[in-house]
Amino acid sequence: MQRFFTIQKSTEFKNEKLLLPQEIFHHAVDVLRMKIDDQFELVTADEKVYQCRLTKVDKHEGQFTIIKAIDREVEMPVKVTIVCGVSKGDKAEEIVKKGTQLGADRFIFLNSRYSVARWKSQKQIKKIKRLQTIALNAAEQSHRNHVPEVEWANSLDDVIMKNADTDFKVVAYEESAKQNEKTVLAQIAMQARTKGLTSLIAFFGPEGGIAPEEIKQLTAADYQCAGLGPRILRAETAPLYLLAALSFATELE
Amino acid sequence: MQRFFTIQKSTEFKNEKLLLPQEIFHHAVDVLRMKIDDQFELVTADEKVYQCRLTKVDKHEGQFTIIKAIDREVEMPVKVTIVCGVSKGDKAEEIVKKGTQLGADRFIFLNSRYSVARWKSQKQIKKIKRLQTIALNAAEQSHRNHVPEVEWANSLDDVIMKNADTDFKVVAYEESAKQNEKTVLAQIAMQARTKGLTSLIAFFGPEGGIAPEEIKQLTAADYQCAGLGPRILRAETAPLYLLAALSFATELE
Repeated sequence: MQRFFTIQKSTEFKNEKLLLPQEIFHHAVDVLRMKIDDQFELVTADEKVYQCRLTKVDKHEGQFTIIKAIDREVEMPVKVTIVCGVSKGDKAEEIVKKGTQLGADRFIFLNSRYSVARWKSQKQIKKIKRLQTIALNAAEQSHRNHVPEVEWANSLDDVIMKNADTDFKVVAYEESAKQNEKTVLAQIAMQARTKGLTSLIAFFGPEGGIAPEEIKQLTAADYQCAGLGPRILRAETAPLYLLAALSFATELE
Repeated sequence: MQRFFTIQKSTEFKNEKLLLPQEIFHHAVDVLRMKIDDQFELVTADEKVYQCRLTKVDKHEGQFTIIKAIDREVEMPVKVTIVCGVSKGDKAEEIVKKGTQLGADRFIFLNSRYSVARWKSQKQIKKIKRLQTIALNAAEQSHRNHVPEVEWANSLDDVIMKNADTDFKVVAYEESAKQNEKTVLAQIAMQARTKGLTSLIAFFGPEGGIAPEEIKQLTAADYQCAGLGPRILRAETAPLYLLAALSFATELE
């Protein structure tokens, strides 16, 4: 069933006859050609989900009613923030699209030391806006209850400072994979399973990799170097490995 | 270090002075501009890996010598065959590229019931050839010892018959995810960890999903319906989830 996100909170749904928010009206009626009695799912800003039915459609607005609340856990028990040095081409789009399907809580992008294609300030704003739309669409399609935030960071210092109170911090370092580092991700998974940690931040380099001084800076701030298996993963694949592995470890049994 | 695959077997390397195979010569010297004393890794058809050094380069051929054998386990303990109903666009390319990085052993594509963009016979040959090249390049880049085979199957019956003796068979079914199926993938991982299974075949539908009659046919042939977490994954993301989860479960500790 089609899922929409609204910026309204569930506490605002007091009437029997509810007015469809304009942006959803456009998507549902103009784009998807939904008609009276068609059903959809609505996720509120406070992440409640409702099964709804269109009760009235005219040229400019639609009314709906709530059939029932849906109470199904689709969010990972550990909130994962994916931090990526920007790469060339549409890799950021790919990371946000697939990362949202795989349960990421938040994305942060930055120009890191070895980023070949740096985003200048004009591009930063445009790109982040576009990535936020991609996250919304992917959240609708993958039936998330939470739309991951997409943020820009001006520097690695900035990332480190603003996320200092995250439970667990890792950096996916190619050299760790080569040195056969095998335990950090498993440790995180175990702690997440036993609810010993509920937030994780993971730093990934761009296609050029992570600079030694960045590794120094990150490890000084308690980021642990983690291997993601014995094969060399590309910049856009590594975050997906981490997310899938954590989902497997915490959501399957 | 740059890695190349050769169709030669390690037993053919008897001389001190070895001749670089033509296709590698072209890639190494013409494309990558490698020079005398540059080092590279060579993987033979029997999946042995050697660290090598260029000893002579002229216009048409190159000679190299073996420095040492490299003995590092980079292949998953369970051989995973990914079977996909064909999807629109370049999703097959994406599955092969990322799936190779994530350790797949083999890929099979077919026109499945709900495939929107069916591959006709002329296209089948062209596409499979192209996908095989993508697998080779991805295997070089991710430092695999094995280049996954890419195959075409004429029907689901064909896939089922030719892979009947695989240890474990699964089908990634969206309905299983919705019904909160959580145990099949964990079972596979546990058996793989204890070496109880060494081969797995996993069937994935195209973007249109899997037809009920296909599920019937697959389950009749002992394919178990597996959920891949609580979120709805797209056709090109689901195989990556399975591979990353299995790598995590069998290659990290």
